[in-house]
Amino acid sequence: VVTTGGTGIAERDVTPEATRAVCSRLIEGIPEKIRADGLAKTPFAVLSRGLCGVRGRSLILNLPGSPKGAVESLQSVMGILPHAIDLLAGKTGHGEVDSQ
Amino acid sequence: VVTTGGTGIAERDVTPEATRAVCSRLIEGIPEKIRADGLAKTPFAVLSRGLCGVRGRSLILNLPGSPKGAVESLQSVMGILPHAIDLLAGKTGHGEVDSQ
Amino acid sequence: VVTTGGTGIAERDVTPEATRAVCSRLIEGIPEKIRADGLAKTPFAVLSRGLCGVRGRSLILNLPGSPKGAVESLQSVMGILPHAIDLLAGKTGHGEVDSQ
Repeated sequence: VVTTGGTGIAERDVTPEATRAVCSRLIEGIPEKIRADGLAKTPFAVLSRGLCGVRGRSLILNLPGSPKGAVESLQSVMGILPHAIDLLAGKTGHGEVDSQ
Repeated sequence: VVTTGGTGIAERDVTPEATRAVCSRLIEGIPEKIRADGLAKTPFAVLSRGLCGVRGRSLILNLPGSPKGAVESLQSVMGILPHAIDLLAGKTGHGEVDSQ
Repeated sequence: VVTTGGTGIAERDVTPEATRAVCSRLIEGIPEKIRADGLAKTPFAVLSRGLCGVRGRSLILNLPGSPKGAVESLQSVMGILPHAIDLLAGKTGHGEVDSQ
């Protein structure tokens, strides 16, 4: 599940709160990487509060609302999403995540 | 609101807990950037637990207690604070945070 | 206290949840650094959810389950652990953590 928008710090920006409320666990490293990569483009990347979390076997990823920001954020973590979704589907070949 | 001190890991260091208790939302990217920039100066930057959060229309930022550490931490995020404060004041021109 | 394993995103991976449950405070900068360093080796480092926290005067650090990942993660933060343990033992020489 991918959301767009509502990840800033203004009062209207409540996507992270809603995401947190429905996720059983968060994957902190994903928004960390999105912000770190975003800093190469704009110092305002630090204000993005988007989360990535897990509910059941679904991955939920918050992207910013601007088309440019959403595309850049998705590109930042696109490479690991198929593997993450495999893991959530129960394909947990030992050592895959940890040692690769 | 800027605080100094109490951001370490010793028992007396309770500023982050107090900050979290009064904030409606946290901006994780700000302490992340402070720590990442701090690592260029000292490996102990990872032990800084300072937070940045929002209560109402106020931004609360925790800085370390040492004058040197406080100045360096503030410099690390100074550039984005005026924009962050504008956003909290309701100036949410669409796309500003997300696309710049 | 060092744990290994259970830090991924699969359903069986519950070490971070157990760690959070027993810690009075978390040190977010330590897993941040482990993940950031890990990214130089593998893009899957972002999926590591290991935590570092404090309970009483003990430091609890989660490492991944693979021997390679565990060694690399430990190396990433080894340098600051003795100082962190000193601080938890009450040796809080003012300015040490903040200004060095």
